[in-house]
Amino acid sequence: MADLSGVRALTFDVFGTVVDWRSSVIGELESFGARRGLETDWGVFADRWRREGYAGGMRLVRDGELPFQTADSLHRRMLDILLAELGAEVDETEAAELNRVWHRLQPWPDSAAGLARLRACYVISTLSNGNVELLVNMAKFGGLPWDCVLSAELTGAFKPEPQCYRRAAELLGCEPPQVMMVAAHQGDLLAAAQTGMRTAFVPRPKEAGPNHPVDLTPDPSFDIVAADFHDLARQLDL
Amino acid sequence: MADLSGVRALTFDVFGTVVDWRSSVIGELESFGARRGLETDWGVFADRWRREGYAGGMRLVRDGELPFQTADSLHRRMLDILLAELGAEVDETEAAELNRVWHRLQPWPDSAAGLARLRACYVISTLSNGNVELLVNMAKFGGLPWDCVLSAELTGAFKPEPQCYRRAAELLGCEPPQVMMVAAHQGDLLAAAQTGMRTAFVPRPKEAGPNHPVDLTPDPSFDIVAADFHDLARQLDL
Repeated sequence: MADLSGVRALTFDVFGTVVDWRSSVIGELESFGARRGLETDWGVFADRWRREGYAGGMRLVRDGELPFQTADSLHRRMLDILLAELGAEVDETEAAELNRVWHRLQPWPDSAAGLARLRACYVISTLSNGNVELLVNMAKFGGLPWDCVLSAELTGAFKPEPQCYRRAAELLGCEPPQVMMVAAHQGDLLAAAQTGMRTAFVPRPKEAGPNHPVDLTPDPSFDIVAADFHDLARQLDL
Repeated sequence: MADLSGVRALTFDVFGTVVDWRSSVIGELESFGARRGLETDWGVFADRWRREGYAGGMRLVRDGELPFQTADSLHRRMLDILLAELGAEVDETEAAELNRVWHRLQPWPDSAAGLARLRACYVISTLSNGNVELLVNMAKFGGLPWDCVLSAELTGAFKPEPQCYRRAAELLGCEPPQVMMVAAHQGDLLAAAQTGMRTAFVPRPKEAGPNHPVDLTPDPSFDIVAADFHDLARQLDL
């Protein structure tokens, strides 16, 4: 394990790492469906919204097929496609409100208290592909005590582009080895490590739901593997 | 008064508006001077550090005579000049630590509680020429409950350049009229208003100390003039 005594700041991936996007989104979609008399498998709808809309949309941006835009905008683009497939006629106000479900995601049970504990000794910040507005609203909704809300949006590119990690370290006044990236996603951590950051893997086996098994075997290069944020705090001697 | 019902976010100037930089800086300088056996008028030292180092440094950046750099860097540049004038020999560690006094500024008595009250109904963010790291450390030091730490640093320019205000509104997902700039400095507010933001003037008559009287007569264009952050909350019907 690398020497972690120089770490001053922890940057967190958010969707899946800090919040349970899938249960939160399915819950609101079910209410929406019931209200509107729409029937579909809302789990599949949520998974496609996330995979094709968010992850797929970011890929299109990286490949130059879409201009850079916020996560809100990518979510909305896919929501409109999914609602059209369902044959649902939804007015602008309702679609905008539904799209903002991504601002209202429930934290995992350990997240808020674990972050509060980590915050006592470290600067804790988001480092998400979600846009600043989304992350700020989510923090207010879920009581997440960030010191700072940083986003890939600030660089006009998405993780895992290296400038996202480098700019975050710079804004926090740190060299990359003074920052530890915390994520449930191994690719995010491997990209952070490429820029010199330290890494903490916090697997969230329930993130993707029953139909999308996640590889939980940690890459041996990670500095820490923790069961949740309390365990992370323990391993950082808090 | 403009209609303020659409305001969703409040952005705050920080030095002087939220924190009492002068007393805080003089306090640490006096301790430093006593420790090192240095004698000077530390009030004058602090005023020059602020006026020539920070404000003057930003002017040099705006005029293209210095490259864009952080407030920390501008502060350090002037600190080295002032210490040299005093004939003080200070090693790198001590100079860096002294320069970080700007990360350890005491809030005005109403600031933390007033912000907590405003935060219940609005997104509250910094919008300072201080760099992100400085603002994050200051918030931890002073218990300032920001939802978000925004800085002119994110645009590579300093207030009152209009892109600083516009980018802050954009990152908060707002049109400028949905954001109210809160400041003790009239020029900051007038520049914000030029971009379409709403304005709240909170004069801080003690900011500049006894030797630099401040013009406290508010420009008639301001939407709100408040005695402190509690009064601001009251005027916003909180």
